[in-house]
Amino acid sequence: MKLGARSQKLLAEGRVAHLATADQYARPHLVPIVFAWQDVYVFTPIDRKPKSVSDWRELRRVRNIEANGRVSVEVDEYSEDWTRLVWVRVDGLAEILTSGAPHDLGIQLLEAKYPQYARMPLGDAPIVRITIEHVSEWHG
Amino acid sequence: MKLGARSQKLLAEGRVAHLATADQYARPHLVPIVFAWQDVYVFTPIDRKPKSVSDWRELRRVRNIEANGRVSVEVDEYSEDWTRLVWVRVDGLAEILTSGAPHDLGIQLLEAKYPQYARMPLGDAPIVRITIEHVSEWHG
Repeated sequence: MKLGARSQKLLAEGRVAHLATADQYARPHLVPIVFAWQDVYVFTPIDRKPKSVSDWRELRRVRNIEANGRVSVEVDEYSEDWTRLVWVRVDGLAEILTSGAPHDLGIQLLEAKYPQYARMPLGDAPIVRITIEHVSEWHG
Repeated sequence: MKLGARSQKLLAEGRVAHLATADQYARPHLVPIVFAWQDVYVFTPIDRKPKSVSDWRELRRVRNIEANGRVSVEVDEYSEDWTRLVWVRVDGLAEILTSGAPHDLGIQLLEAKYPQYARMPLGDAPIVRITIEHVSEWHG
């Protein structure tokens, strides 16, 4: 996987990303996410007690990923000086992990990146792991 | 269309949004966009001379919209204090406009919102107009 320095920085240090999924009817869905990146993987946690539904398995992103693993994740830095705009997008295959070594690695990376989790550990929260298949970079 | 005050502010004042489209195979695609909102419409311009392809009609978002008008647009404000996170998502139907009164209204709204266009007017640039069908709001 070839990644420019700007994209590496966005993936390593970006605080918020955007996750696009689509259902079997090709209807896209989009949410902001916190995330951690390592190698060919992007991890993002799933809230065990979402406000919008009674069970995390009912979340649109989860249902979409279970029907269709193709996802797109994007991280950007907006600037009013448009020559300084920069973004990176990774396309890949997502899966839901609820236990096991890859799950625990994701939890560990997320907790290391976001000090917010010190007060509310992710523990055994389900996570999404995206295996990156393609990277696109853009800068102004 | 019912919109909370926070969502109205994000749609009116947000500087960058994210546009998710999907092709006929339900593969999602995601790009950051500048945008203008009015009533049930969101407008975003298409660069006439994109770097990534020789013709704007070859842009993935354009090809996707022509194959499948369903799109999702999201605007958020990230905060390290996660109780202050806020986002709004609008789902709707997109179309590409290259001329006519709705096209000219979009251009006018975009040029009024972004002073950057004073030095490089959009003129007759193609735009995407999204007709909002559903709004989701979230705050921490």
